[in-house]
Amino acid sequence: MLSVSKRGKLMPPSPIRKLVPYAEAAKKRGIKVFHLNIGQPDIETPPQILDAVRHSDFKVLEYSHSAGNESYRKKLVEYYNRVGIHVDINQIIITTGGSEAILFGFMSCLDAGDEVIIPEPFYANYNGFAVAAGVIVKPITSKIETGFALPPIEDFEKAITSKTKAIVICNPNNPTGYLYSKEEMETLKEIIIKHNLYLFADEAYREFCYEGEHFSAMHLTGVDDNVVLMDTISKRYSACGGRIGALVTKNKDVLQSVMKFAQARLSPPGFAQILGEAAVDLPANYFEKTKKEYQLRRDTIVKRLNDIPGVFCPNPGGAFYAMARLPVDDADVFCQWLLENFSYNNKTVMLAPASGFYGTGGLGKNEVRLAYVLNVDSINAAMDCLEKALEEYPGKIISQQTHQQTAL
Amino acid sequence: MLSVSKRGKLMPPSPIRKLVPYAEAAKKRGIKVFHLNIGQPDIETPPQILDAVRHSDFKVLEYSHSAGNESYRKKLVEYYNRVGIHVDINQIIITTGGSEAILFGFMSCLDAGDEVIIPEPFYANYNGFAVAAGVIVKPITSKIETGFALPPIEDFEKAITSKTKAIVICNPNNPTGYLYSKEEMETLKEIIIKHNLYLFADEAYREFCYEGEHFSAMHLTGVDDNVVLMDTISKRYSACGGRIGALVTKNKDVLQSVMKFAQARLSPPGFAQILGEAAVDLPANYFEKTKKEYQLRRDTIVKRLNDIPGVFCPNPGGAFYAMARLPVDDADVFCQWLLENFSYNNKTVMLAPASGFYGTGGLGKNEVRLAYVLNVDSINAAMDCLEKALEEYPGKIISQQTHQQTAL
Repeated sequence: MLSVSKRGKLMPPSPIRKLVPYAEAAKKRGIKVFHLNIGQPDIETPPQILDAVRHSDFKVLEYSHSAGNESYRKKLVEYYNRVGIHVDINQIIITTGGSEAILFGFMSCLDAGDEVIIPEPFYANYNGFAVAAGVIVKPITSKIETGFALPPIEDFEKAITSKTKAIVICNPNNPTGYLYSKEEMETLKEIIIKHNLYLFADEAYREFCYEGEHFSAMHLTGVDDNVVLMDTISKRYSACGGRIGALVTKNKDVLQSVMKFAQARLSPPGFAQILGEAAVDLPANYFEKTKKEYQLRRDTIVKRLNDIPGVFCPNPGGAFYAMARLPVDDADVFCQWLLENFSYNNKTVMLAPASGFYGTGGLGKNEVRLAYVLNVDSINAAMDCLEKALEEYPGKIISQQTHQQTAL
Repeated sequence: MLSVSKRGKLMPPSPIRKLVPYAEAAKKRGIKVFHLNIGQPDIETPPQILDAVRHSDFKVLEYSHSAGNESYRKKLVEYYNRVGIHVDINQIIITTGGSEAILFGFMSCLDAGDEVIIPEPFYANYNGFAVAAGVIVKPITSKIETGFALPPIEDFEKAITSKTKAIVICNPNNPTGYLYSKEEMETLKEIIIKHNLYLFADEAYREFCYEGEHFSAMHLTGVDDNVVLMDTISKRYSACGGRIGALVTKNKDVLQSVMKFAQARLSPPGFAQILGEAAVDLPANYFEKTKKEYQLRRDTIVKRLNDIPGVFCPNPGGAFYAMARLPVDDADVFCQWLLENFSYNNKTVMLAPASGFYGTGGLGKNEVRLAYVLNVDSINAAMDCLEKALEEYPGKIISQQTHQQTAL
């Protein structure tokens, strides 16, 4: 019998999408489902940048340069300059989404069997790219009690072996919303220097920081060869479907290697490069407005969550995610129950169980991730549902309330 | 010192792009360069399908389904039906170009160390995807004397080991333009059944056949689980920059595995899915017109080549490539010389040396690939250059002419 590859079997299915059939069934029963489970923003893609595509007037949809259009890379140099990242066009390779930047980074810097340390909970798809590259993810745990701050340096030291080649940091973090401080980034710098590691920095949510400034891995000095930035326009401009990202580094060998992977797949998508290029010319207040909206949503959802007895939600400093601990036996069961067995005024809410974001089995069993990608009214209605649901859910755990008090 | 991965070092640079700096230098000296080196068609992308993108009116550029928009997959079912490939929407996964279809196929079906047999000369980027997947390419040689027909079954048998998991066939072929017959496809079927192998069929050029009908690997009966079709709209509609392809198979396990890779990268590009969907509704005579143009170019270039003393070019049955044997010592040197040291009426021609398309070292040293992606006038002017160049080139080999006679 023909069989698929071992890595094909190992490849994890999307933990966020496994509840989709239950949501679809609920909708068929006439129930409105508030989707707080996925990072698909409802914020409109700026019409100006969609228009840049709509008004394009080329005759042949040609391959672009494998590193992306030079005109786009020139614009990105401007953009990065504005956020204090000083690079030239040859240090930027346009990728098909942030996804391809992660894949190219893993492929170019790591071999099968190499280890990469990632603070957990982490973006679940890192697992997928690790499996594709044969790389082993070594999670070290960040804790809800500290708001998911960087784990202590000793935890890194303990996890580092002769096979460790890199650390991945997502800042601000998906799924926790945690915004790493300058001090934490400097700690990471010490570790990567001491152990000669790459630092892969996923900064997809850079523009959405609510507590203090974003400190990029590219702001660290003296580690130009270690830092590889994995970026995307998906969240920045609500342009997820365009599939445009970038890998940025000052490491010449890495650039040369990534370029070969880029050449093999010929070029990144053409239309969305036009969109990305136009986005750099958006008015300076574009992010202010979007950020204000996200901040309002964050303030709403965090307050509503912490007002529910037994629920604890640390205040996330960035991105558009919040992690909450719920007074339930098993968040996977609870999230399915929300869709299968519950409704309030004919409405329910879809959440992402946190277990899928942990590399260590058994962790996050009573945590969920909430993406605040809906407007404040919908968030309030969704929180009404959650509040009611936690009253009714048969697997509720009462003692959790004391934990919350301690943690706060 | 930090170093890139072994696979990053192993990754081959694009053999087609290595001469680019010499072409750029020639242009700077004021020389017109006819680009017959790359498969970027000059045929206009049908304006109707570009308009479908330009007139799209969504507000948020959202992720699509990881397998691609359902509406697009439904349309593709129609398209495939028209060419006698009967599949349903769940047997189609939209990919980021044909490139990603190849990568997903390799990743899902093959493990590191597995072997895949490919008749050489072959599309050079298979090497890149093989390195990414840790897969070993075992070339078996097809010969210019037979017009690059399928190598005899014994050559396959000799190359098959316990690690062989698949055969890759590109039909019609890039770089040779060879169109495999039904009989040759049936021979492949025998081999994959006997040795329990996957058959990866790259049919990017399906619509461009000039000698007889295209016989798809999906037309083979009784091997539904073995055949994985890797497809793309790039050449079909002159839409290379869109980056839209598809992986099509009836093998449920492969589909399930590929779907996990597809989920990890979230979704294929959004804009070009709209374009691809519109393309299925192009008038029935669209391909006729395009094919007629390519056929005229093929007839022109093949005649012009064979009219040059010492040159031999078999008549390609499909795609838009021709392979020619030149009376030169080293085609790599000759192609560089054309750009660096030669011009005729201030013009020269850029060709792709064939060595980059062979997996076996030393083969193809006096062969080049020509992509007939320019109009007939340009092709004639380019052939004038080539004819003159072969008179002047210091590394010309005279005895080659006798070979040609024998071969014809």
